[in-house]
Parts: sequence; structure tokens; C-alpha cells
Amino acid sequence: MGDSLLLTDVRPWGADPVDVLVENGLVAAVSSTGSPDRAGTHVEGAGRVILPALSDVHLHLDSTRLGLPFRAQTGEPGRWGRIMNDREHWRSAERSVAERAVFTLAVAVANGATRIRSHAQVDADSGLTKLEGVLAARERYAEVCDVEIVAFPQVGILLEPGVVDLMDAALRAGADLVGGIDPCEIDRDPVRHLDAVFGLAERHQVGIDIHLHEAGELGLFTLELIHERIEALDMRGLVTVSHARALASGLPAVPAAIERLAANEVALTHAAGAKGWELPLLDLAAAGVRVGVGMDGQRDYWSPYGNGDMLDRAWQLAFVNGFGSDQHVEHALAVATWGGASVIDRSLAPLDALDLRPGFAVGDPAEFFLVDSVSPTAAVMDRPAERTVIHRGAVVSVDTALDGFEIPGRWGREGN
Amino acid sequence: MGDSLLLTDVRPWGADPVDVLVENGLVAAVSSTGSPDRAGTHVEGAGRVILPALSDVHLHLDSTRLGLPFRAQTGEPGRWGRIMNDREHWRSAERSVAERAVFTLAVAVANGATRIRSHAQVDADSGLTKLEGVLAARERYAEVCDVEIVAFPQVGILLEPGVVDLMDAALRAGADLVGGIDPCEIDRDPVRHLDAVFGLAERHQVGIDIHLHEAGELGLFTLELIHERIEALDMRGLVTVSHARALASGLPAVPAAIERLAANEVALTHAAGAKGWELPLLDLAAAGVRVGVGMDGQRDYWSPYGNGDMLDRAWQLAFVNGFGSDQHVEHALAVATWGGASVIDRSLAPLDALDLRPGFAVGDPAEFFLVDSVSPTAAVMDRPAERTVIHRGAVVSVDTALDGFEIPGRWGREGN
Repeated sequence: MGDSLLLTDVRPWGADPVDVLVENGLVAAVSSTGSPDRAGTHVEGAGRVILPALSDVHLHLDSTRLGLPFRAQTGEPGRWGRIMNDREHWRSAERSVAERAVFTLAVAVANGATRIRSHAQVDADSGLTKLEGVLAARERYAEVCDVEIVAFPQVGILLEPGVVDLMDAALRAGADLVGGIDPCEIDRDPVRHLDAVFGLAERHQVGIDIHLHEAGELGLFTLELIHERIEALDMRGLVTVSHARALASGLPAVPAAIERLAANEVALTHAAGAKGWELPLLDLAAAGVRVGVGMDGQRDYWSPYGNGDMLDRAWQLAFVNGFGSDQHVEHALAVATWGGASVIDRSLAPLDALDLRPGFAVGDPAEFFLVDSVSPTAAVMDRPAERTVIHRGAVVSVDTALDGFEIPGRWGREGN
Repeated sequence: MGDSLLLTDVRPWGADPVDVLVENGLVAAVSSTGSPDRAGTHVEGAGRVILPALSDVHLHLDSTRLGLPFRAQTGEPGRWGRIMNDREHWRSAERSVAERAVFTLAVAVANGATRIRSHAQVDADSGLTKLEGVLAARERYAEVCDVEIVAFPQVGILLEPGVVDLMDAALRAGADLVGGIDPCEIDRDPVRHLDAVFGLAERHQVGIDIHLHEAGELGLFTLELIHERIEALDMRGLVTVSHARALASGLPAVPAAIERLAANEVALTHAAGAKGWELPLLDLAAAGVRVGVGMDGQRDYWSPYGNGDMLDRAWQLAFVNGFGSDQHVEHALAVATWGGASVIDRSLAPLDALDLRPGFAVGDPAEFFLVDSVSPTAAVMDRPAERTVIHRGAVVSVDTALDGFEIPGRWGREGN
């Protein structure tokens, strides 16, 4: 990180070519092309578009089956059916949690995502096993990406004995944030669920990231309970709500709900789902709410979707929002890059206007990826596989060649 | 087509391996693997999944910019803004209509789509120029795919002089069907618009394919006007409605609208759009309505989306419907393959049940593609690039190697 890096002839967000000088992991200078030779690493941009690194801020590294043979969805329908289906099958995976998490991280980084927030399930069945796998993967790739881990009570906190103690142990073992899930629908006792979540956060002085699939008025109610606790405990800027499906309801109360999220500096992450899961991105940007996007479950017992490519997910985010203009498609890309980064790192400015294209000011973190394309919108539409990825000012992947891993499918082919 | 073709060790819809014998362009026999050597062409399936060929039944070959440098969306918002933006810019394309249509057809076929229904815009500005380009492309690839062409009055029929005469000329020049568009919203005179469309169809004894973006109650009203004419003219089984957005409204009248579509054998095509464009696929299948899907505009002045890969569009169809189970994902794939084929060829049975996986009975047309995957659902999720494509009983593409064309992006790279 002490070394300097010179990126020549790169086009930030598709603008005119410049040279970008990186020192100590930060942008040190942006100048017209034709910089004199200097010591340190040199990357020939060759006119490629350079973008802030992608961020995957809602990922389940513990359940991913990316690269493994596809398994059919055999569980009962609904959230609970999937939870139990996972519980029945996860131990029979062909590779360990750590191996699967490592593979998926490698794919994510090779595709340009260097900022990750992953959930790790903590429950009475699996204890801390899944967390330990994710911790091992984070350790394995400490040099190529930053990984935050949420201790995630997938099966609720109150339904099975010992979960609060397990969550406590998870936070002591290295998890960075306290998770929660659907306080009304899973535990069916939102007050006790949220009190447990916020209690753990207070005790460990960490942030919170709550899965909230609850729809419509129910989800809006749970959001109010979350706000009450943020305000009482002065936890503004420390809470993330994942999915926040209620905001996709179109209900008359949504604008006020967005204002309160902004006031309490609650960030949002989601998986860019369709059919009633589309967050009102433009309203959220106007209100200054930090929003990021992620892969969520990938080919696991939750979802057959996902491929480890956050540029693909940026496409999906634009698509589900019906974005067609370059300005809108670029905003989706800004969410999938800087937006997610600003969820993890609250010192980064939020995307509070539609035309913000940050990442290349002096002092910005040198987290980038380069892609050969006409424009950012074209890059989103084409999703070219070849990318150069820069993390903390160092090149960590060139053309999917991260530490011998290739793009998904290798294990699948072998395993057929 | 007279030659025989033996496909060995292939898995129809992911089932156990079989050998498929093709004669005269039709399935002649399906038997256990280990067929004796015989004369004719032999394709080693090597355990690959074999599926009915993909069908792209809603495509605009005249406007595609697939493979060309991306152009920003610069027009005014809305349908009319896009129409005028296209009118302003289409002549400045780097390649002719015919060249662009040929390239896009090649990409479609290499990806496994051998049944195509394309629109060709007919209007006062472009006359028959666009149709002629699409006709030339069809002629160029007559051996590798079947292309139906709709004479499409994109700018309305009544707003500009001479359009009915141009439509008439288009049908004499080789267009197969009469198009129409948003009779209320574009021409603002649904009766005269539809009377012109049905009049042309009667005169030329051809079918109809009407773009209907009109939403909610308005679109349902227009559907009623269409039904009145089908019933009066006895045109059951001859009409397609494209998009049919009103069916995605969730209005109480939708189930009755679906029943009437079934009764009048109206087929539907759409582009698998999100955010209010999702057709109720499962209800339509239960009612026996034929549904197909297509790429629509591709990187043109209508849409930056689209990549010429109908397996990708099958993924999109599953995704926008929130399909997660194998049964549902496979249904989306059935719609994108056999479903579309059954829109074009009314002699093929409709997908009137969710678990129908047709295409491999003796006598079925030998239109297939092979893909290396664990299952049909895995193929949809992975969209492997390498495919073997069979049209009318002959291999027409292997691993995107159709007549020297490669997957999209070549022209784009050159043009940067």
C-alpha cells in the first residue's frame, strides 16, 4: 500500500482520458494524460473506462454454492420452507463453508467487487460453524478485499434456545455487526427480537444490519420500532436495513418512511429483486439515504440466481427499475459501486443526487476496476468479463486471473 | 433436410440420456443410448441437455444496434420521444439495416434461436426501407432460421399520410403479418386504427400482431375492441397481441380478459419486462393461452438492453416472475422455446399445463439446441455460451461459430 500506482489513459465514469496517480492507497492526483515515467507500478489504461470498485453489501458467503453442481429447489415454498431446506442439506455440500466462501470471494473480486458485507448464519443447528467458515475466507483474502461480517440469526432469536448467547459469541469471535430478521414474521415478537438485537449492539458497540422482508404496512410498522430504538439509543448512522421490502409497496406512508430513514441515517441494502422488491431508488437518492446492492444467496437453498458478478447485478438493478437513460443506468452503477461502499464506510459521501459520479477526487480511496467499454452504461449492458481490479491502491486481479480461480462453472463442470 | 441426423447421449429437458434420430427434419425415433452406427450426420451429445430451439417472437431486426458502438439515449422521455429520436438518428447507423439485421440474426441463431418473428417499421419517413433490410436478412439466413415479418406501423396508421398504402405495399413485398400499435394512445382513434389493421389482414388473408403497451383499463378496453373484430371476422387463432401490458395490472377484470384471449385463441408475445410489464404466466398457461417471448429492441433508440441471447431472456422471464423452483424456471424456459414456437406455428400444442416439456415426440420438428449443464434450470441460470444448434434437422451452429460471426461486441470494440 505504500507503493505508488500510476493509471494512465483511463476514463473515469467514461469521461475524457486522464492519468490517475495513487499513493498510500488513495488518489493523489488526477491529471491530463502523458504523465512522465515514474517509479512504482504502472497500469496502461488504453482508454478503458475506470469506475469505483463494485461493492457487494448483501451477500451470504456461508450458504453460497457458486461453482458447485446445481441443486434443485426441493423445499416447501416460503421463507420457513427454505430455512428448513437449508438446515436439512447444508452439511452435504461437496466443499466446506470456508472453501465455498473463498471461491465466491475470488469470483467477486475478479469481477471487480472489493468491498463486501456478508452475513454468516448463527443458529441452534449450525452454531458458529458457518461464521468460522466465513472468517477463514476473509482471512484468506485479507489482501484483496475488505469483508464485513454480520452475525445473522436466520432462524430467529427467540424460537430456539441459546441464540442470544451464540450471537454474543459470534461478535466476540470476529463478526462486525449484529443481524436480525423479520421481527414480526419469524420470531412473532418484534419488541423482544429488536431489544435483543439492539442490546447486543450496545454491549459490543457495533452496528446493526436487519433483514426486513416484511411487506407493506407490517414492514413499515417494524421500521417504526427500529427507529424508536435508534432514537432512544442514539444509534443514528449505525443501522442498516436489508431488503426493506415495505418501501416497494407504493403505500402513501412510504415517503414519510424514507424521510425518517434519512433523518436517522439508516442505510439500505438489497438484492435488486423484481416483482414487488424494487426499492424506490430515485426517491431514496433525493432523500440522501445510502443504498447498496448485493448478490444475496447464490445458487443456494434460498435462490438459484446469482453469479458472483456485481456488474451483472448492477444491470439487474437498472433493469428492475426500468432505467433506460444513461443517467439512470449510471445511477444504478453508482449504487452498485460507491453506494454500497458508502453503506459500509459512513465517511464516504452518500449519492444524494442523481448525477453524482464520485470516486476520483484527491483523497478518495483507490478502489477501482477498469473495463473496456464505450461508456459506463455500455459496460453495464455488456458486462465484459475482462476487468482489472485495484484494491487499496494495488492491482489484485487482471482478466479474472485472481490466484488461479476462474469465473464460475469450474467446479460445476467437474461435478456433473 | 432429407439427410438423417443421429443425436446420441442427449438428455431431453435434462432427463436420462437417449439417442434421438431425426429424419426429414422431424423426430423419427427416441431410443435408449447405444444406437448402432448408421449413415448420415452424427452429433455426440456427451450427456448434454437438449432443448427445443429457442424462439424470439418479438424482435425488431430493423432497429437493432447489436454489435455497434453504444449510443446514449438522448431523446425525450416516453414512447413518442423515442419514436422521434429513432426517426432523427436511424439513418446515421454505421451499418445498413440489412447488415445490422444479418448480424443480429446470426447472434440469435448461434445462441439457439431458430424461430423468429421480427417487426419491420413502415412509416412515412422510412417507407419500405426498413422492411427491405429485414427481408434481405431473412433471405441471407434462409437456411439457418425461419423468420416471420410483421409490417409494423410504429408511428401509427392515421397520423401521417399514406401509411395504409405503405402497409399494403409491405404485405405485397413479403411481410407476413399486419402490425398495429396502441390504437388509443398513438392514433387516438382506436376504431379507425383497428379497422385499418383488420381490413389489411382480411384483404391479404394474413394474421395480425398488435403492439399493446396501453396499461390498465385502457389496454383492457382496446383488447375488447380487438376481440369484437376477431369474432365478427372469424379470425380466431390468427391474432397476436404483443406486450399486453394491461394483463400485468392486477385489475379484477384480468381473469375474464385471459379467458376471452383463450376463447379467441389470441397469442401473446412480450419482452419479459419488469416493473408492471410482467404477464401472469401461470394463469395464462392454465387458460391455454399461447405465450412467447422476445428480445424486442436491442441497444437501439428504444432500449439499451438486449444481447441477442434468448437463453438470457429466458432467465429474465423467470427472474421477473420471481420463479425459484425448478418447475417454474423450466416453465419460463418452455415459454422461451416451445411457447414462442407455438405462437408462430399454431399446429404445435400450447403449453396449457405447467409441467409440459414438449419437443421430443416422434413427429416433432427437429429444432433443438444442446447445452452443457446439469439441468434445464442450471442452464437458464448459467447461460453457457457454447451451444450446438439444430434447425430443420441440420446442425447450423456449433459454439457460436455461425458463418464466422462471434458473440456480440466485435463491432463495438472496433468502433470505440
